[in-house]
Amino acid sequence: MSRMAVKESDVDVLVIGAGPSGLMCANGLAKAGVDVRIIDQRPSKVAAGQADGIQPRTIEVLQSYGLAERLLREGNQMHMAAFYNPSANGGIERTGRAADVTASTARFPFEVTLHQGAIEAIFLDSMASMSVRVERPIIPTSIKLSMEEAELADPHSHPIEIVLKHLDAEDGQVDTEIVHAKYVVGADGAHSWVRKALGITMDGEQTNYIWGVVDIIPETDFPDIRNRTAIHSHNGSCMIIPREGDKVRLYIQLADKEVINAENGRVDKAKTGPEHLLQVAQRSFSPYTINAQEFDWWTIYIIGQRVASQFSVNERIFIAGDARMRIYNGAGQGMNASMNDTHNLVWKITYVLRGWANISLLETYEFERRKYAQDLISFDKKFSALFSGKPRSEANQDGVSHEQFLEAFQTFGAFTSGIGVHYAPSAIVNTAHQEYASNVIIGQRMPPHVFIRAADARPYELQDLLPADSRFKIVVFVGDISDVSQGERVRTLGTELAAPEGFVKRFGGTSHDTVFDVLSISSATKNKVNYTDLPVALRTHWSKVLLDDTDMFARVGGKGYETYGIDPLRGAMVIVRPDGYVGMVASLENTATIGQYFSSFMKS
Amino acid sequence: MSRMAVKESDVDVLVIGAGPSGLMCANGLAKAGVDVRIIDQRPSKVAAGQADGIQPRTIEVLQSYGLAERLLREGNQMHMAAFYNPSANGGIERTGRAADVTASTARFPFEVTLHQGAIEAIFLDSMASMSVRVERPIIPTSIKLSMEEAELADPHSHPIEIVLKHLDAEDGQVDTEIVHAKYVVGADGAHSWVRKALGITMDGEQTNYIWGVVDIIPETDFPDIRNRTAIHSHNGSCMIIPREGDKVRLYIQLADKEVINAENGRVDKAKTGPEHLLQVAQRSFSPYTINAQEFDWWTIYIIGQRVASQFSVNERIFIAGDARMRIYNGAGQGMNASMNDTHNLVWKITYVLRGWANISLLETYEFERRKYAQDLISFDKKFSALFSGKPRSEANQDGVSHEQFLEAFQTFGAFTSGIGVHYAPSAIVNTAHQEYASNVIIGQRMPPHVFIRAADARPYELQDLLPADSRFKIVVFVGDISDVSQGERVRTLGTELAAPEGFVKRFGGTSHDTVFDVLSISSATKNKVNYTDLPVALRTHWSKVLLDDTDMFARVGGKGYETYGIDPLRGAMVIVRPDGYVGMVASLENTATIGQYFSSFMKS
Repeated sequence: MSRMAVKESDVDVLVIGAGPSGLMCANGLAKAGVDVRIIDQRPSKVAAGQADGIQPRTIEVLQSYGLAERLLREGNQMHMAAFYNPSANGGIERTGRAADVTASTARFPFEVTLHQGAIEAIFLDSMASMSVRVERPIIPTSIKLSMEEAELADPHSHPIEIVLKHLDAEDGQVDTEIVHAKYVVGADGAHSWVRKALGITMDGEQTNYIWGVVDIIPETDFPDIRNRTAIHSHNGSCMIIPREGDKVRLYIQLADKEVINAENGRVDKAKTGPEHLLQVAQRSFSPYTINAQEFDWWTIYIIGQRVASQFSVNERIFIAGDARMRIYNGAGQGMNASMNDTHNLVWKITYVLRGWANISLLETYEFERRKYAQDLISFDKKFSALFSGKPRSEANQDGVSHEQFLEAFQTFGAFTSGIGVHYAPSAIVNTAHQEYASNVIIGQRMPPHVFIRAADARPYELQDLLPADSRFKIVVFVGDISDVSQGERVRTLGTELAAPEGFVKRFGGTSHDTVFDVLSISSATKNKVNYTDLPVALRTHWSKVLLDDTDMFARVGGKGYETYGIDPLRGAMVIVRPDGYVGMVASLENTATIGQYFSSFMKS
Repeated sequence: MSRMAVKESDVDVLVIGAGPSGLMCANGLAKAGVDVRIIDQRPSKVAAGQADGIQPRTIEVLQSYGLAERLLREGNQMHMAAFYNPSANGGIERTGRAADVTASTARFPFEVTLHQGAIEAIFLDSMASMSVRVERPIIPTSIKLSMEEAELADPHSHPIEIVLKHLDAEDGQVDTEIVHAKYVVGADGAHSWVRKALGITMDGEQTNYIWGVVDIIPETDFPDIRNRTAIHSHNGSCMIIPREGDKVRLYIQLADKEVINAENGRVDKAKTGPEHLLQVAQRSFSPYTINAQEFDWWTIYIIGQRVASQFSVNERIFIAGDARMRIYNGAGQGMNASMNDTHNLVWKITYVLRGWANISLLETYEFERRKYAQDLISFDKKFSALFSGKPRSEANQDGVSHEQFLEAFQTFGAFTSGIGVHYAPSAIVNTAHQEYASNVIIGQRMPPHVFIRAADARPYELQDLLPADSRFKIVVFVGDISDVSQGERVRTLGTELAAPEGFVKRFGGTSHDTVFDVLSISSATKNKVNYTDLPVALRTHWSKVLLDDTDMFARVGGKGYETYGIDPLRGAMVIVRPDGYVGMVASLENTATIGQYFSSFMKS
């Protein structure tokens, strides 16, 4: 008989599942100083295959956590897309090349491909530097949420009891642990135990489109093997996703009969394999040749789209990532949506745990992410149908034309890049004063732009000054401070911000610099002004004053007011949420409306 | 009586001194796989102070070793210079702002400031990743070079015997070591033991200009405290060098009487201190105020310029860095020249050790670096005199005017940035065919430019494809390969390069890809050509073909042929040395002249 120990513990947040969604969550919470644990059932991280495309917006998000540098160094970049269609002589021919990313404001105008294990390693190393490690292999065996109202309403209570089983526990070690958590995030994948344990259903449907995926190092004379290439041939469709090193992923359309078990109608993995997948691809590639010596990873799947009926239980237990939505396509949406789910959630949990925000702030997680999930599913249905459909030809006038496909590719560009994600009005998205910054769309992420620092003319990407550090950024576009009357307005604003009744001190208290970071951006040029010209409340440090001007060699910067749609003669204040999304816009005179914004979800 | 052990050992290269010059040397040699050791007399690395300004060209060099990223992350950047002169009311006023760096082709158009210890740490960590560590504290006690001709002429002999003393050896440990080295690099500073042991003299002179230096975190209302600011006041001159974090270095002109010991005429450090230096600075700053709570580091020095009478003994022992030249000014030339000395030397030693080049290649070290040292000294004399001189005023019409100073600042811009370094014609600098690439100046570093990769439209800085990896880069500007007759010329060139009698195989043999890296750059646009259009000898990998075109969003790239002065209708071949300097230029038809170039210093 083995002697096992049982222990009991408390934690603020327990994250279940260490895929991209769970890792984004645990890393972000650790960075915010939150007491967090993360567990996973796998004994080690993923080594190859699985999802691997990082969209432009996700790169921006990773950059906001200081993690993009390594991703960009290790990953492959897809800048160009190519399109092939049937040629007159029976094979295929290129019908065009285009930018892979069509969202023109993307800071990183490309997608990065890197295998999931390497992406996870970026998070794991970041977390390790903060002494947070994934505990594995561990599975949850039961979860209970107290339904006592007072307990649920108290942000400091531990209403969740979850039992964990340590799978590799040896004699004498803890094998069963009872954890009392304030919050639980279930990021445990498509077959989510958390979701099932809570009785949350998945709604949606499956299509008839069956695809295979195989990773190879190709030997080929195909000139677009390093581009995202969509091949529509009379022998089936194929998508090329170039990856790190010399690797390439092929998405290959399969016919039902090839892989369906006739008896039960299900996909039968035994009926195919990487050699077979490559053979099918070779037929689409003709007259070009493609071969491989070995196969890195492969799978097959039926395209389908499903979404969970609810994303949270009483704002105490959340589900995120594949656990709350499952899509399957070659557009790489799944992993990106998963990471952005928890990016949306991290700062909200942090604010509630710190006692800064009301627990109701957590309701905005499902509100914001469900709409996105639904839009994504609509897109995925259309895109899958177009890509899986037969190409247009003399014989098949109803088939998909190159123009139709290209149009869909470009129309959905902002969406597939993640750049166009647009959160609807709520307590944290107040669209009342959009006119003061007409191109800084409230509810979307703050668009990138290069400004120079007033004190030393060093150029900075504004997004790099808006890191995911749990603070709201108050970006004050002060206009031309070399103008006398504008200088007067700005001094008045400085006085208001510094006042005890101003929103900075009302909601930030004595440690307001942990809640708010104030940046000033003047439209005046570097030869005209000094950073010392601004009132102290608008320059808490010499580095906090920027100018809308070019660097010394006019290589970068300038035209920021124009890009953002801000009038230099009246200025604007932009409130950027800790996750980089624009919460509201106001005039320089209207600090009162900003106070109302914060009072709707924060405690003073 | 202590029992000490003596040991005897062989090494290919022994580097003496682990300052920036020695570290650049040891790191470069280690990266090239050379058997190298580096010793230093100090028990640990420098913590604060000393030289700390990295020039634009040195950043490019560090980038070529993969070391710039960390420098840029940790250091401060100086983009802007400001100039202050006496104002009508007795204080000072700003007379202008300008770019700190005036060399318009600089890839990094700014200087980086970071304390020497942090710069050294970058090298130490890089070396540690290759298992090379500085051995310390160790001093050399004797050095002997065999004068036997046959031994000196044999590149594989160990003609140097050097005795080392391990200063912290304990009982029973080695305290005396006899090292037999093929080559020795003395990078042991201004008071170089190696230089003195070899009887090499320093020639030059001292001036009457005395300066103090102090590092502070300032409290000030001075608006240009984060710029490189030159203050000329009636109360003396002062130079501000902003540094990492909130630190600032002040260079402060001192009067003789303040710090000279009247009895012996020498600088007396006891007569001053950081508080005194700040007081002197405060007089120059008036009417602005500047204060500090504490002082990080300080020193005083007399400006002077001296250079060693020879830089090597029989091309077996070399001296580099401060050991062979000493200048003192606020323009930060010393450390940069030091690092570029050994950057120049590393590949040459590597080639001789590998048996690829004749030992005579090593003569070009002194040839190339002495001329630079002399130019630097001439500059330093002029600049020091201007900056230490009295400002022009009503009473002093012979004083230095703002215009004079600014003109000198800008005239010498290419020089002070290190970008203008121009090696004279020699075996490795052949200027015969400059006309094929009129702006790619032979003898200067390959200018930066962004091209896109043909296979995937990803933009690349060309300099990043010319790393310091010991290889000569053959950059073939193939012109518009979509043009039929140009395509024909390029195919002919491909055949010549692939031939057994072509220079690639003649001087590279069977492992020619360790000696040469061939890159092709076409002037055709991304929609017109495929990387597969080039002959295989001009595309050894899909990543080796570039286009002179913009990226997909037209944000970077394009106009490379124009920038480099290359005619797209005839193309050019540019031979870039392993240190990034242009060795020669030729037409596409003239591979024979390239063969002659290599035969003048390499073995076939």
